[in-house]
Amino acid sequence: MDRITKQLNFLKEIDKIKGIFRASLILDGSKRENDAEHSWHMGIVAITLSEYYEKEISMEKVLKLILVHDIVEIYAGDFPCFGESVSNKYELELESAYKIFSLLPSDQMEFFLELWKEFEEQKTNEAIFANCCDRYQGFLQNLMSDGHTWRLYNVSLEQILKRIKPLKDNIPLVYEKMMLPEIEKYIEKGAINR
Amino acid sequence: MDRITKQLNFLKEIDKIKGIFRASLILDGSKRENDAEHSWHMGIVAITLSEYYEKEISMEKVLKLILVHDIVEIYAGDFPCFGESVSNKYELELESAYKIFSLLPSDQMEFFLELWKEFEEQKTNEAIFANCCDRYQGFLQNLMSDGHTWRLYNVSLEQILKRIKPLKDNIPLVYEKMMLPEIEKYIEKGAINR
Repeated sequence: MDRITKQLNFLKEIDKIKGIFRASLILDGSKRENDAEHSWHMGIVAITLSEYYEKEISMEKVLKLILVHDIVEIYAGDFPCFGESVSNKYELELESAYKIFSLLPSDQMEFFLELWKEFEEQKTNEAIFANCCDRYQGFLQNLMSDGHTWRLYNVSLEQILKRIKPLKDNIPLVYEKMMLPEIEKYIEKGAINR
Repeated sequence: MDRITKQLNFLKEIDKIKGIFRASLILDGSKRENDAEHSWHMGIVAITLSEYYEKEISMEKVLKLILVHDIVEIYAGDFPCFGESVSNKYELELESAYKIFSLLPSDQMEFFLELWKEFEEQKTNEAIFANCCDRYQGFLQNLMSDGHTWRLYNVSLEQILKRIKPLKDNIPLVYEKMMLPEIEKYIEKGAINR
């Protein structure tokens, strides 16, 4: 199969990400969010909040990591962050990564696989910032749905603080000004267990 | 209102893009595509096909243009490319751009507005390539839905060729190898009027 046909097949197959649903709600709570919507929103979060991340980053790399990070869920599915922990999540996603990225020519397969691994490994500044955007976007969807996933999974304050620790460690201003005061409100509302 | 509150309000408001529907169908024709899904898919098209665009580009700029280009549709709505032409489309979108981007601090309002204008004006290499990705993604959704928007608007070959002319002019290999043969098939099927 020629290079361009492989690329076309990949670009068709990834349409399926639009049917991979997260626990988060969108549009006044009327629908569940899918991975394409989430990734797009994360991209705008990154552009808007990058000024608060103090380390040097390539925004090109950040945006690529964001756009690619959830493609593996096309076959592995979404594992809700407050749901039951899945011990073989990494293996399932790695298998899915090989399956989907191997639709591409081999050099591009490597390129996409490396982007996904870089995000997973959380070692580069770009991966750390992209992960903050991921956590922040999920948090934001909760603020817009009266704490939907917090209520759904009956989460504790400890679970939320653990989830958003990357922001505490790496974008403390966003953590302190945009997240902690909201958490306080949701504890008072009874949506988060202290 | 402080800087961070303005940014938060903007990031909440843009959730609405997930409810702006295009004429294109996704997921085996079961749903209409929204602007967030479309923009995410365009981003992956850009990463995958950039090798065929011969001019020098900043992929950081391309991805920003792509992520931002349809935000104005939150208030202006989507104008289907084969639908009735709307003479004041630019004015409606400009008005919408000011409305949504002015939720941000003024420096960021300017930044987002300039990105949107750069895409619209089609003068830079990045804007031209981003536009090719836009046209290609719409074409791709037709290939996956048995020519849904082509049939819906009873389009002619001339209309399609006009729509994809940016690819003919700027990524001729994609145009010749990925698009023309498919168009031929859809003419034979009767989905496109010769």
